Amino acid sequence: MQYQLYYWPTIQGRGEYVRLALEEAGASYSDVARSGNGMAAMMKLMETGQGKGSGTPPFAPPFLKAGKRLIGQTANILLYLGGRHGLAPKAEAGQLWVHQLQLTITDLVLEIHDTHHPLGPSLYYEEQKAPAKMRSDEFWKSRVPKYLGYFEQLLQASGGAWVTGRRLTYVDLSLFQIVEGLRYAFPRRMKAFEKEIPGLVGLRDRAAARPNIKAYLASDRRIAFNEDGIFRRYKALDT
Amino acid sequence: MQYQLYYWPTIQGRGEYVRLALEEAGASYSDVARSGNGMAAMMKLMETGQGKGSGTPPFAPPFLKAGKRLIGQTANILLYLGGRHGLAPKAEAGQLWVHQLQLTITDLVLEIHDTHHPLGPSLYYEEQKAPAKMRSDEFWKSRVPKYLGYFEQLLQASGGAWVTGRRLTYVDLSLFQIVEGLRYAFPRRMKAFEKEIPGLVGLRDRAAARPNIKAYLASDRRIAFNEDGIFRRYKALDT
Repeated sequence: MQYQLYYWPTIQGRGEYVRLALEEAGASYSDVARSGNGMAAMMKLMETGQGKGSGTPPFAPPFLKAGKRLIGQTANILLYLGGRHGLAPKAEAGQLWVHQLQLTITDLVLEIHDTHHPLGPSLYYEEQKAPAKMRSDEFWKSRVPKYLGYFEQLLQASGGAWVTGRRLTYVDLSLFQIVEGLRYAFPRRMKAFEKEIPGLVGLRDRAAARPNIKAYLASDRRIAFNEDGIFRRYKALDT
Repeated sequence: MQYQLYYWPTIQGRGEYVRLALEEAGASYSDVARSGNGMAAMMKLMETGQGKGSGTPPFAPPFLKAGKRLIGQTANILLYLGGRHGLAPKAEAGQLWVHQLQLTITDLVLEIHDTHHPLGPSLYYEEQKAPAKMRSDEFWKSRVPKYLGYFEQLLQASGGAWVTGRRLTYVDLSLFQIVEGLRYAFPRRMKAFEKEIPGLVGLRDRAAARPNIKAYLASDRRIAFNEDGIFRRYKALDT
């Protein structure tokens, strides 16, 4: 099947977790909004979806078109893809466990976003610099150790190279992205913190070395980090 | 099956979405941390879970014990329960759609929490009153209309009494809780806003009138709203 991924065309954002899974799986997909009038197509799908009985209108990007189905919410898309592309266990119990971990990453991603937007997504960073600094300090003091410590422990206990054991899942790809993103956004803080998470640093390296991921990262399909995404490098927040 | 729900014993919080589903389903469950030394049992399960290879240690409450399985993340627990208790469609496409809506509610719940804790969960409200006021203003100006407008449109288009049609799902129970909670936390703002969401107000009334929900709300199993939960009534944020 040829998938159509709909996401903002100039950022990695939440769409990146889906892109990494599609790339690792070697799935055929188009990144719709990045081509021709794809952005208009995405907006139209969101508008005509809502309130007109079209079935399953998404609240926000990313969403994935798979045949006639339109699936929204990052973790939900991964739940759908995981079982079909060998990126999650086959049994229901394993699928729910991997999904549970992805939902914990979802929570973390939102907290990362809030480091530069503690007053909400509708105001610019420049309008909330002082609260952003306080939130960032808090985030690195208590939240990063809690979240990454949790995944580090899971990894140490897994008995394999990946968080759930010997087989890679989409959660590992998402953790790769978390490490990459924190390195980009908070280079000084992350450098100091990495000694606490040797397992996750190794996992990041193993994920980056997988042939499909390596090829993806070297391609122009991988959008560079920038200050419109989730992970933003603001020097004032990194000290 | 007798379920064991683990959640903080003195608040509705995220556990309430699970309680409402269990109650509507007439499922047999114990609210572990609210009884005897249940709180110690919950903490022990979290501590011994982590890093000791016990399988699926949760990152945070709520989590549900179902036989030998331990399932965390609110929306994930509902995904598990929905198909088993007639609170979600039977087909995979329908289950993913209902789950997608629940994940959108999850995002909304986190934004509600952030109205009183924009600088992060580790500081007291009293330490962040001014940012909380700004975030609350922003929340009511742009986020509430977007989220509740989305669900109102879905409800209008559904052709039934519930968001996905003629059969109640756990999403409807969660929307009941959202309306109740916003009425509690922001009585003035919500009163002014309710004219925009007549459908959701009607849904709230229909959910409250269902026999199992009605009995639950009248029982002491329903914890009262209070200022330790997600929905907090702070007069300064409601003007």
